[in-house]
This record gives sequence, C-alpha cells and structure tokens, in this order.
Amino acid sequence: MFRTKIKNLAGRLVFTPINIKENIMLSNFYIEEHVKQALQEDIGFGDVTTESIIGNNLIYYAKLTSRVEGVVCGLEVFKTVFKILSDNVEVKLLFNDGDKIHKGDVLAEIKGPAKYILLGERVSLNYIQRMSGIATETRKYQDAIGELPCKIVDTRKTTPNFRAFEKYAVKCGGGALHRFNLSDCAMIKDNHIKVAGSVTNAVKMVKANLSHAHKIELECDTLEQVKEALPSGVDIIMLDNMSLEQMKEAVKLIDHRAIVEASGNVNLNTVRSIAECGVDIISSSAIVAKAPALDLGLDM
Amino acid sequence: MFRTKIKNLAGRLVFTPINIKENIMLSNFYIEEHVKQALQEDIGFGDVTTESIIGNNLIYYAKLTSRVEGVVCGLEVFKTVFKILSDNVEVKLLFNDGDKIHKGDVLAEIKGPAKYILLGERVSLNYIQRMSGIATETRKYQDAIGELPCKIVDTRKTTPNFRAFEKYAVKCGGGALHRFNLSDCAMIKDNHIKVAGSVTNAVKMVKANLSHAHKIELECDTLEQVKEALPSGVDIIMLDNMSLEQMKEAVKLIDHRAIVEASGNVNLNTVRSIAECGVDIISSSAIVAKAPALDLGLDM
Amino acid sequence: MFRTKIKNLAGRLVFTPINIKENIMLSNFYIEEHVKQALQEDIGFGDVTTESIIGNNLIYYAKLTSRVEGVVCGLEVFKTVFKILSDNVEVKLLFNDGDKIHKGDVLAEIKGPAKYILLGERVSLNYIQRMSGIATETRKYQDAIGELPCKIVDTRKTTPNFRAFEKYAVKCGGGALHRFNLSDCAMIKDNHIKVAGSVTNAVKMVKANLSHAHKIELECDTLEQVKEALPSGVDIIMLDNMSLEQMKEAVKLIDHRAIVEASGNVNLNTVRSIAECGVDIISSSAIVAKAPALDLGLDM
Amino acid sequence: MFRTKIKNLAGRLVFTPINIKENIMLSNFYIEEHVKQALQEDIGFGDVTTESIIGNNLIYYAKLTSRVEGVVCGLEVFKTVFKILSDNVEVKLLFNDGDKIHKGDVLAEIKGPAKYILLGERVSLNYIQRMSGIATETRKYQDAIGELPCKIVDTRKTTPNFRAFEKYAVKCGGGALHRFNLSDCAMIKDNHIKVAGSVTNAVKMVKANLSHAHKIELECDTLEQVKEALPSGVDIIMLDNMSLEQMKEAVKLIDHRAIVEASGNVNLNTVRSIAECGVDIISSSAIVAKAPALDLGLDM
Amino acid sequence: MFRTKIKNLAGRLVFTPINIKENIMLSNFYIEEHVKQALQEDIGFGDVTTESIIGNNLIYYAKLTSRVEGVVCGLEVFKTVFKILSDNVEVKLLFNDGDKIHKGDVLAEIKGPAKYILLGERVSLNYIQRMSGIATETRKYQDAIGELPCKIVDTRKTTPNFRAFEKYAVKCGGGALHRFNLSDCAMIKDNHIKVAGSVTNAVKMVKANLSHAHKIELECDTLEQVKEALPSGVDIIMLDNMSLEQMKEAVKLIDHRAIVEASGNVNLNTVRSIAECGVDIISSSAIVAKAPALDLGLDM
Amino acid sequence: MFRTKIKNLAGRLVFTPINIKENIMLSNFYIEEHVKQALQEDIGFGDVTTESIIGNNLIYYAKLTSRVEGVVCGLEVFKTVFKILSDNVEVKLLFNDGDKIHKGDVLAEIKGPAKYILLGERVSLNYIQRMSGIATETRKYQDAIGELPCKIVDTRKTTPNFRAFEKYAVKCGGGALHRFNLSDCAMIKDNHIKVAGSVTNAVKMVKANLSHAHKIELECDTLEQVKEALPSGVDIIMLDNMSLEQMKEAVKLIDHRAIVEASGNVNLNTVRSIAECGVDIISSSAIVAKAPALDLGLDM
Repeated sequence: MFRTKIKNLAGRLVFTPINIKENIMLSNFYIEEHVKQALQEDIGFGDVTTESIIGNNLIYYAKLTSRVEGVVCGLEVFKTVFKILSDNVEVKLLFNDGDKIHKGDVLAEIKGPAKYILLGERVSLNYIQRMSGIATETRKYQDAIGELPCKIVDTRKTTPNFRAFEKYAVKCGGGALHRFNLSDCAMIKDNHIKVAGSVTNAVKMVKANLSHAHKIELECDTLEQVKEALPSGVDIIMLDNMSLEQMKEAVKLIDHRAIVEASGNVNLNTVRSIAECGVDIISSSAIVAKAPALDLGLDM
Repeated sequence: MFRTKIKNLAGRLVFTPINIKENIMLSNFYIEEHVKQALQEDIGFGDVTTESIIGNNLIYYAKLTSRVEGVVCGLEVFKTVFKILSDNVEVKLLFNDGDKIHKGDVLAEIKGPAKYILLGERVSLNYIQRMSGIATETRKYQDAIGELPCKIVDTRKTTPNFRAFEKYAVKCGGGALHRFNLSDCAMIKDNHIKVAGSVTNAVKMVKANLSHAHKIELECDTLEQVKEALPSGVDIIMLDNMSLEQMKEAVKLIDHRAIVEASGNVNLNTVRSIAECGVDIISSSAIVAKAPALDLGLDM
Repeated sequence: MFRTKIKNLAGRLVFTPINIKENIMLSNFYIEEHVKQALQEDIGFGDVTTESIIGNNLIYYAKLTSRVEGVVCGLEVFKTVFKILSDNVEVKLLFNDGDKIHKGDVLAEIKGPAKYILLGERVSLNYIQRMSGIATETRKYQDAIGELPCKIVDTRKTTPNFRAFEKYAVKCGGGALHRFNLSDCAMIKDNHIKVAGSVTNAVKMVKANLSHAHKIELECDTLEQVKEALPSGVDIIMLDNMSLEQMKEAVKLIDHRAIVEASGNVNLNTVRSIAECGVDIISSSAIVAKAPALDLGLDM
Repeated sequence: MFRTKIKNLAGRLVFTPINIKENIMLSNFYIEEHVKQALQEDIGFGDVTTESIIGNNLIYYAKLTSRVEGVVCGLEVFKTVFKILSDNVEVKLLFNDGDKIHKGDVLAEIKGPAKYILLGERVSLNYIQRMSGIATETRKYQDAIGELPCKIVDTRKTTPNFRAFEKYAVKCGGGALHRFNLSDCAMIKDNHIKVAGSVTNAVKMVKANLSHAHKIELECDTLEQVKEALPSGVDIIMLDNMSLEQMKEAVKLIDHRAIVEASGNVNLNTVRSIAECGVDIISSSAIVAKAPALDLGLDM
Repeated sequence: MFRTKIKNLAGRLVFTPINIKENIMLSNFYIEEHVKQALQEDIGFGDVTTESIIGNNLIYYAKLTSRVEGVVCGLEVFKTVFKILSDNVEVKLLFNDGDKIHKGDVLAEIKGPAKYILLGERVSLNYIQRMSGIATETRKYQDAIGELPCKIVDTRKTTPNFRAFEKYAVKCGGGALHRFNLSDCAMIKDNHIKVAGSVTNAVKMVKANLSHAHKIELECDTLEQVKEALPSGVDIIMLDNMSLEQMKEAVKLIDHRAIVEASGNVNLNTVRSIAECGVDIISSSAIVAKAPALDLGLDM
Repeated sequence: MFRTKIKNLAGRLVFTPINIKENIMLSNFYIEEHVKQALQEDIGFGDVTTESIIGNNLIYYAKLTSRVEGVVCGLEVFKTVFKILSDNVEVKLLFNDGDKIHKGDVLAEIKGPAKYILLGERVSLNYIQRMSGIATETRKYQDAIGELPCKIVDTRKTTPNFRAFEKYAVKCGGGALHRFNLSDCAMIKDNHIKVAGSVTNAVKMVKANLSHAHKIELECDTLEQVKEALPSGVDIIMLDNMSLEQMKEAVKLIDHRAIVEASGNVNLNTVRSIAECGVDIISSSAIVAKAPALDLGLDM
C-alpha cells in the first residue's frame, strides 16, 4: 500500500505538469506590502532627476525584454510595482511565470506616464531579474534530471525576508519545494540523534510532540543509520553527502518504504547521476543561493 | 510497515508525555510584539486614575491566584507584559504552562512599582485567562478520551491574529495540533472532489503540486469515499460527521493504512464514544472557539 | 438639574433605538489592516490544495447562511476579506449588523472565482462567527433586562488586539459600551482608595489631573463608601459585588446624583433582578469572554 | 450637588499641583517605537562624516544646556534616543519635565562614545526642543490666567502622528487636556445641530448612542443656544467666539450646571480677560500649533 | 571650470522657476501610510457624535477656504485623507501646491457623505495647515532675498517622523533643500575638526570613506578655517554665525571655488543683508521649526 | 582647484585604508527589526524537531567556521540573531567585518542553550553567507584593480529590502558605494536627455531643482556627449558601455574636471584594463547580483 503511494508520487512528475498560472503562493497583499517597502528603499525622498525633466503629461510605451534565454518569473510582482506607483500605468503581461523565454522576447508592455515608469524601473527589474534567475537555474537542474522520476527541491538557505519570492521562483523553474520553515515538517539531524541517543529514540520523541498533519524527515550519513531508520516509521530519509554507490544501496534498502532525498555535492554536473541512483528528491541550496540574476531590460 | 508507523503514533500518547516546558512554539520576540500592541490598545494615552494617585515609589507585592480549578497556560506571556512596562517589576513564576491548578493556587508572585503592576493587570490577565481557558477545555476533552490511543486536536477556527496563542494553549491542555494554516498540509474537501471529478483525481492533482515534505488529508462523508481513498495513498482520512457505526466500519476498512481523524458533533458527551470507534485523532473547534476564559485574579 | 440628566440617560434606552447601520466605530482601513494580518496567518505560503485543483476560471456562487438563531455582526468585515483577496469577488450583503437572524437565513451572497472564495472562507467565518456570537450573547442579556431603563455594557476583559471588533459586537447586540481603555474615563478602585487614604482624597487627586472632558467612576464595595462618594462629585458609582438588597439601598441613597453601575455575579439568571434594583448600567465580561462563536456557514 | 462638583473642579487648580514626575501618559514602548522611526528618518544609511573621523574609543562628556528661559519637557524621550543607539551612552537627567529652566541651566549630562552622541544629537534635540516649546508656551498662558480658577487646554489641532508628545507637553506646561480623539467625548457642533433640527434633539440623539462613561460637550455660538442647552443635560458648554460680555452672561446663565469652556480669539493678550469672565476652561490651538521650538543645545 | 559651475547654480534661481506640480518627492503610498496612522490617532474608536446624528445618506458640499494670505501646500495629502475614509467622497483641487493664495480663496471642493467629511476634517486640516504654514514662511524669506542669486534652505531641525512633509513644504515655498539625512552629504563640524586635528585632516579622512556621488560640506567659524578649507577641495563651505563683514570677506576669499552657505542669526530682518554678502545659500531652521500653522478652514 | 579635488579623491585609495570597524552604516535597531522578521519567516510556529528532543538545560559550544577563503562580513548581524532569540547565548566574535579569512578559520564562538543555537543557525548563516559572498566578490574586483587609483562601486541592482546589508558588504569588500537611492544624487540618463532636448538643457533643468548638497552625474554613450557635458558643470560623468579606446579618450577630454565613472561589461577579466584607462570609478552590479553565497558553517 505504502509502496503505491511513493510510486504515485514519483510518477506524477511525468504525467501531471504543474500549471503555474493557477498558483496562489504569493498573495497580492503580501506582494504589495513587500513592494511598497522596496520602493521606499529605492526612492528615498523622490527621483530628483526625473521630476526635474519629465513633465506629468509625457506618455511612454515601454517593453520588458529578455536579453538572454531563460525562464521568466515574477511578472505579477513586476506589474504590482507600477500599480502601486500610479493608477495610470497599464501593464500587459505577454508571458506567464514559468514560461521559457528567448533573447529578444517581449515579456510585457507598459504604457503610462514616463515619470512613473522611470520611477519603478529599477525596483521592478530587481524583483523579476532575481526571481527569473532562480527559475532559470532551477530549470537547468530539472532538465538535467530529465525524464527520471525525481525532483530538484530548494532548502532553507534563502535571502532573509525574501523566501516566499525565492520558493515561488523554484516552483516556476519546475522544481518542487522542501518545507517552508522549521514548523511544517520535522527534520532530525545528527545533533538531535546524538542527544536522543539513537535514531529510534529521536524519532519516538518527535512523534510524541508532532502534529499528525506533519511529516518526519531523518538525515542519514551512513547506511547503518538508514537501516535503523526504516522500522522507526519516518516519512522521508535524507541521504546526506553519500557517494553514488551508497545512495544506490540506500535506495535498495529503503525499497519505497519512505521517500528518499539526496543532499550534498549537488551541481549541474552531478545532479543527473544522483537522480540515476533512484532517489525521489534532490535538494540543493545552489538553485537559490548561487543563481545569478537574469538579464532582462526595459526598453522605452 | 505502514501499520507499524500508525501504531507508533497512537502508542506515543500513553508512553511519552509532552513536556511543555521545553516548548518553543511562541518566540519571545513574537510575544513581545503582540503584547506591545495589546498594551497600546488598553492603555491609550495612559492610566489617568493610577498616575493621579499612585506615586513612583510605592512598591506592591501581588499574587496571581487561581479562583477555580483548571490548567494554566500563558505564564511567560503574563511575565512579558510586566517586563515591557518596566525593568523594575519582578515576576516569579511558580507553575509551568500545562500544570493542573486548583482554587487558591498562587501561580506567580509579582513585586515592583504599584503603578506598573496596576497598568499591566488587565492585559496580562486577558492573555492568561483566555489561554488557560482553552488549555482547561482541551484537558477536559483529553481526559474524557482517557487511556485510549487517541488525541483531541484543534482546527483553523481561531480568533484572527491570535492563533499562535490558541494553538499553544491546546498543546498545554494535552491536545495535539492540526495544520497551522493552508500551506502546511493539503486538505481535500468535497468542493475539491467535485471539481476534480473523483477522489482519485483530486489526490493525483494535489500530489503533482505538493511538497514531498507535506501530507495529504482527505475529508470523507461516506464509506464509499473512504474505499476510494484507500488506494490513492492519502496520509490522513477525515471522517466527517459520520455516525459511530460508520466510523467503526471506516476504521476497520482503513486498517491502519492511513491516520484516521474524526470530525463533527464533538462535545464532552460524545468524545469518548468517538474515540472508542478506534480513530486516531478527533478534531474539534469547540476547544478553542467555545472555551470560556478561566477565572484567575491578581491579589495585591 | 443633574437628576434630569440621569433620567434622560436612562430614558433614552426606550425611545431612541440605535441604528447600527450608521455606526463608524470600525474604520475601513483599520479593518483592512487587521484582516490582511489574519489572512497572512491563515494562508501561510498559499492554499496548496485549492491551487492544485481549482482553475482560475471556475466561478462559484456561495451563500453565507445561518445555522442557528442569533444576532449577526461583522458583515462588512466578512466582505472585506474577499475584497482584499481579489477584485473579482462580489459580496452582496442581505442583512445589517445587529439584525436578528434565524436558522436558514441567507446573510450574504458571494460570487466570484472559486479559488478566492475557498481561500477566504475560514478567515471570513472566523471574524463573523465570533463577532456574531458576542452580539447574540449581548442581545440575550439585554432582552432579559427587557423594558427596564438599564443597559448591559462590556468591560476591558477582551481578547488582546481584538477589542475594537468585540466592542462593536456588543453594540450590535443592543448593549452599550464602557470605557475603551485606561485613558478615556477615570476608574477609582480599592487599591487607589487605600493609597489615597479615603474616597474623598482619591477623587480629589484624580480631579486635579483629569481632563474636564472625562468622567470619574468610583468602585464601591460597601454602602459606607457610597455615602462617602456622593458629596465627592463622581460621575458614576459602581456597586461591586453587592447583594440585591444593598444595590436597592444604594440606588435610593444615590438618588440620581450619579449614574449607578452594577458589577459582579452577572449572568442570564441574575441580570433581570439586578436591573430591577434600579441601576442604570450592568457591566459584564461574560458577554465577550464567555460568548461562544455563532454557527454560520458558507454554502457553495 | 452638581454645583459642588464644578467648584471642586475649579478649586483643584489652586490646591493640588500636578506632579508631572508621576505621569505615565507616554509609555516607554510607545516612545521607543516613535524614536526608532525618527532615527531611521534622520540617519538614513549612516553618518558618513562621523564614522570617517570619530573612532569607537573616543568618549565624550556632553551637556544639554538651555540657551533661554522656559519650561523643559521631553527629558525621558531625549534619554531614550541615546539608549536606543547604544548601551554605552549614559544620560543623567538633572531636571524633571515641567520644571522652569533658565538660560545656562544644565538639564542633562551625557557620557559615552562620541560617535553615538553625535549620531543622536539632532533627533534628541528635535524632540525636546519642540516639546519644551509647547510646554513653555502653555506655561505663559496659564501664568497669564494666574490665580483664577481656570485652565488652558489644548485642542485636536496637533501635528499628525505626534499628538501624544504634544499633549504631554501641554500638561508639563501646566495646562490641562481636552479630549484625545473623536471617540472619548462627544462634541456637538453646528453641523450636528443643523441636521438634528435643534440642540435638544442633537443631545438626545447622542445620548442614545454614547457610552455612560463619556461626556457630552456642546458648542454654542449664541446665548439662545446656551439657554436651550441647559435643560438638555450636557456636561460641558463651549462658548465659541463670543464677546467678553456674552461670556459673562453665559457663565451667569449656566450657573455651574455645566462646565464652561471658552474658545476663539485666545492669545496671550486676551486669555486673562477671558478667564475673568468666569469660564472654567479656555481651549486654544495656539499653545501647540503656534509654539516655537525652544532653544536648547548640546555642548560637548 | 568650477567657477562656471557655481555661477550656473546661482543663475538658475532666476531663469528656471520650479514647477512644483511635477514634484514626486512624496510618494502616494508614503502619504497613505502616514495618513492612515494619523487618522487612527484622531479617530480612536470612532466619531461618536457624528455617527449618532448624521445618517449615511446625507451629502455635503464643502469648501476648503483660505482665511488669510499665504502659500498653499499639501493639497494631495488633503485629498488622500478623504480617499482613505471613503470611496464616495470626491475632492476637486482648484489650486496647486506652491500657489499664492488670498483670504477667501476656495482651494478645493469636497462632495460626499457628510459623515466622512466631518470624520476627516480635522486630520486633513492638520496636514495642510502645517504644511502651508511652512511654505508661507519660506516664501517670506525667499521674497525678502528677492532678485539676488541666493536660496533659503531648510535644516535637519524638523518634527520627528514628519520630515518629508516639511521638506516638501519648504520646496513649495520657493526654498531649496539641504541634505535629507546624515548619509547623503558629509558635513564636517568643529567636533570633527578637533578630533581630526585640522580641517585638512578631517576632509582627507572623510574623502577616504565617502561615496563619489556625495558632497562634502565644511562648517567654518573663522576666516582662518575658510582659508584652510579652500585647498582641501570641499564642495560647500558653511559660514557659521559670522558677521556680515566676515561673510563678505569669506565670499571674496572663496571666489566661487565652493558653494557658500550662511548660517546663524537668520530671520526676516537679516536675511536680505546676508544674501547681499554674496552667499549662495542661507540655511535656517526657523522656516520649519518656528512657522505657525496657516489658517485654512472647511466650510460646509 | 577642481583638478586637485579629484586627485585627492583618487589618492585616498592608496593612503587611507578604510577601517570598517568604525562603520555605523547599519544601525543596531535596523538590524534587529530585519532579523526579527527573518526569524519569524524561518521559525513559523516553532522548531518542532528541536523542542521534542533538546531540553532546556543542554549547553552547546559552537564555532562559526570558514569552509573556504574569502572576506567575512555580517558578524554583528550574526550575533544579533542569537541575542534576539535568547539572553543566554553568548557570541564572541574573533574577526572583524572586512577581514580576509581562510579555510578553517574560526570566526566566532557561540556558547549557550543548544535549543537556541539550533533555532538561529539557519537564519544567522543566511545573513553572513550572503553578505560575505558579496564582500568576497567585491574584494576580487578591487584586488584585480590593484594599485591603480580607482574604486569598484555597486549599483542600485540589489535584492529588494536587503540593500543596506548588500551595500555594507560592498564596503567591507573594499569597494566604495554609489548613490543609495534615487534622491541622494541626480543621474541623468538618455531618456532624460531626449526629453530635455540636449545634455546642456537636461543639466540646467536638474540644477534648478536640485539641492546644493547633492551632485549630478551624467550618463554618456558617446564622446560627443562627453564634450557637451564638460561645460555644463556636472560632477560625475559616466562612460556607458564604451570601448577601452573611447574611455581613454574620454578621460583625456575630461582632464579631471569631473569624476569619471565607467560602466558596462565589467567582469573580473576586464576590470583591470578598464581601470587602466584612467577612470576614477568602475560601477558593477555583478559584485552584488551575481555573487554566490560564501560557504561558512556552524560546528557544534
């Protein structure tokens, strides 16, 4: 029975593509609050250059254009920047978050007072370039995994107070998500095991305190730990910094009785061979923390 | 294998009592922020009565005393109120959150400028009375369940912007917690099933979008739905408003292949017989939404 | 002259019913800020269940329906929840706050994207169920008082950071309000009297510091204190935990030279007989702190 | 009886001087929040001048000195500025809020890292100069009233988001306070009377909706309105822009059955003669809105 | 070359009048946030007087009228107050910020529910009266300077958390602005010079740490300091509390190699003669800190 | 004269090393506020794993260790995370921000309750890894420039609501800073020139509106624009995307009459040859937007 569950989980990757258009991870009011702060940060006491030269009546037509190939993410956020600045700027989105884009693609058309378009240019690009950068990086990893029933997922190594945007970007890049924070899934690490005395004890103690609605993940450094973990009834077993051989062995041992997550030494060169070990999930901080911003620009 | 897991889960209730003293659900900075707002709400432009009469040098010894029997909860929050008002008020806690208390028990001793003790009296009591009320109510339900391997849990029916305090109180009352919000566990209800076309489809669609670190719960109104649910691989099956007979039948059908949660018509009279059906979890909004404040007082 | 004033005050209760529709106690921007926080609390990183299944184009018609009899309160707040989530959800209110409702009454019709209706369901109900619960409880007390020139009023025993909503609900239930916080009316209690040396001294000290725009209330435990209070010129005399006989005697002694408020041992069984003592005001924390949430539901 | 009350009120001014040291109108956490925002406003991304030149180890002794005569106000706020910037700056207050100060008086001694003293200099002075300016102006008005049983009070004409500081300053200058905001005392003006149809109707309508803990004030332009007001039972009658003769006549008419407040054309030249009309209270926006900042300086 | 630059700077005052209509110093979202807080401060738990008497359906036509001559400032802020309170109040602005106004001028027409116009009256006036007061005061100083190529500018002596509004008002009064905060221009004062050992050293140390995008200003008390300053390459030299003779001498010495700012003893009587010394800029805290509110009123 | 100024500016880079220890760019209260939000984001409803296993009395000694070579930045922020979580965690910093670090260096020692060390681990690392990553990247660029009198500076391409941390990191890496936001320096770009009609007009218009305390920078695409810019009196000329030859020519043309900034195609391979063109400043978004997080870890 349980076996079936995990197989279903893996199987989904092939048959049910995520339609990111339906995503409601970022609430509009959350975005607005974040953007207002960012605008305050960037505007200070006003754009003295623009207000000196650009009159209220000058209308601009601008295009958000891709200078490179990648995956776009943050279009609604981009739109929100201008909506906050003025009721008179119209932004028409021509792509959806998660779409592949190519050099020269026009992602959005903006029309409105030049003053407000110039005022919002930098902040709007700061969001969408960084979010698209993460989506693009994630896409590369997932593409490297290819047809294998395995997903690249993020970690909690995110920019402080920017996590929601970064996690959303991972999803737009075709990745899946790990837990959001410390409270929505238990994760037993070596420090916990040391204090608890054994894997078995650690799991027992967490179960006694955990919501029935949450899962338990266990970090294993050795195959011995994996063996001890199996009868404890954990939901996810993370293979931490294991060799490919160890991972294959672990997958065999676990035999679908828990979800298997691989972690450590994940990069574009290694991700495919890790996936080939048969793990369900590969987690990597690189897709967020080392993703360069994507080069998008506003042409007036 | 899976069977074992659920048995462990149930088993914990008996063998590993929760030590609420170790709980870190409510961060000190979260409490402080909330309390500052509440003090602002209650103080307005100052306590004109007290400032007219009570000089800065008058020192009070006060005792937080229980007027009734119950379970105390919110002692750290109580202490924080006075810490925010003045560095000179000392609060010594004599009980721990989750402790049973009796009429006349002194829960805390407060010593410091009378002015600040009077200033914080109402707000500090408002927190601890309400939190203790919920803990006490929860305790009654869990006591009614008695030795059975079953836990009373809360719901999302909480007071707006007060959920963390209320959930913490449920835990102090010996209950367990359901999901915190809409994002940390999927919960498929009838509206979702209708749109998806079938239970099977609904589960498949959610799995395709869900983090591997999160569980899926399915709300079932009928035994037919339970039967359809079983092969879909959901983690939790909620029996919604079923009769005792239906619940017993469902428990038998499920046979430990998923956690079984009962919901609907839960009150102090029914909770034991529901637990006797063999369900693992009973969820009830009453322990929060209908719990009266507990009568505690400050004796100067 | 003063006598007349008090008689007017009492008389109003019969002849000028409060039209709660005109009430502006809760500013729209105050509600919006509170609701945004509550939505954040409940939504977390998004409703993963709904976004997986419900497409953007599905439109729902939903009805807010009463499952029981009571007094409705919080309809504008309910509406605001959906307004914040999406511009495309229309909410048509069919009742006014303060209206009596019966089982089966449709209180509001909602039309819009199913996704946002499901997203806001729980939070919107959390507000309106709790507020209606308080209004309903208050109504019961005021109805028990019946035709007598006496009002039930609230206290400062409210849920932290939820006071404005609770006080508004009391008003919708036909009750009146006590002071909002520590600064808008002086309230002399036994601790103050002890420090001041006598009732007379306490009142004198407060008057020396008080705004001319604010009143003074004095808490009296004994008839002796009432006698001492009369020449001091306080505006309100609170009879604290007195017997019915004492209260009748106090009312006679005061003889309309101050507003008379009764407090202590107030419940649905006692409130009428307290009112019959001739007091103008009965204050009770029970109408807020012990009011159960009212059972309202959203039918799709 | 009522007469006595008003006489007491007036009498207080002579016999019970306000001890501002006991005042708790401004909560420490309210001050801290306000000051942090103000520091952010003034510091931006740091004091580039000071950080370039002044090392961490240079210690300064500075004195807050008065350059003129006046009334000091805001000493605790002044101290809070440095407390927020660094744990290592010690501020010793040598005067109390409300004290008369003369040119050359040292109001406080500051010792600590030069860097933080320079960083906080401007903001700390901005608070204390403005607050002392208001206290000084208020003192002039109250001194002009002299021994008469009459108080100068403020209005709601305050700087947005700075009201609490300004009202506190009025109190430190020996003035009394009017209502804090629109909700803590009813104030019936000509627009209300027009809509209600008559003074009598207006008062009746407000009484039907008002908390028993709050007062009603009525703005009267003519003696006719005063006459109509008397039997209505209002607590305060404001004589708006009346001539000295009209005011004397009104005071006689009212005969202590309500508190009498004068308003309009109040300045340092007129305030004494207005007080001589026998009014209890004179309200003036000038003491706040037209008070110049007081010249205080920091000598290193 | 440098000479030319300064001449250009001075020359601008004559040839390129500032069009304040194009100003974007105050972002709409910044204004909205500030106004919401101010409304909360003034409204408290609602306007009990108005809600008791004024029904929802009464429509008012009101006019914002000038009672005196001056310069108007804050019209958009005024409008925002009503926009926040209700979607149904229309405000039509008839003047622009910075315009000269005369007694009796109608500055804006307001139409909408009487309830909300009365609710916002005080706060809207508090903003516009104070801002217009500053603009008017600034205008007087700039008019006194007349045709001379010299600008009056503000300082950092502003009301805490109200600086942006005050600086904007200075600009609307025809003045120019000094630095916004401690980070956008270096300002070397005597304390810095003492620590650095000499003017030359101080400048060198600041340059080593300063952004190339920011200027350096030096405060000079004596002509000796001015002489030392010249070869150091500072951008602005402030002549602090110098006599007219000293200032003339300093201007000659500097000979357009730096911008010359005069400070100290600036009032309406002295400002013209200071300008006649040939300085480019005169800074004064009086235009903000000592400006009385301008008398504007709302006629219903 | 002006020439001298620029030479001084350039000269500083060699003779006056920045002592970052004296830096006060990030105020402690700003850091605290930011960190509290980040902790909330990461902790959610508590660390369920740790609280289940780790008792209150377990003390940990942990070391912040460098896994690679680089420049450390964010040590105070790191310390603040633990200070907020508990008064009982002691953090001893062993390096200063801006210091070069090597693999294996212990940067800080932490001692305190294991519970809080584990709770803060991720957030503290998220700050310091990212800030150190930027400092390290900046250092590489500045080292590539070597002994040349030229500085690498940042741009406004920063992470929304994280700019202050990122700019501070650039400074710690030995870079200098460009303007903080749109208001502290004017920057005339091609859109402005197009609207103004010519470079000369654009500069004139900005000067008419600009504070005398702020500079003007002009973006030039061609040598023609540079020539037109020179007599206009701008402070900084940015050479945008010019070839090395063009830049050398521009530097010659400008001849120290303005600061010269190079922009475009800046990477580690090109930065030295750009500096060799004689420009004063090289601005690059890469040092922030493309800097990978630095690998630091917490060893328990």
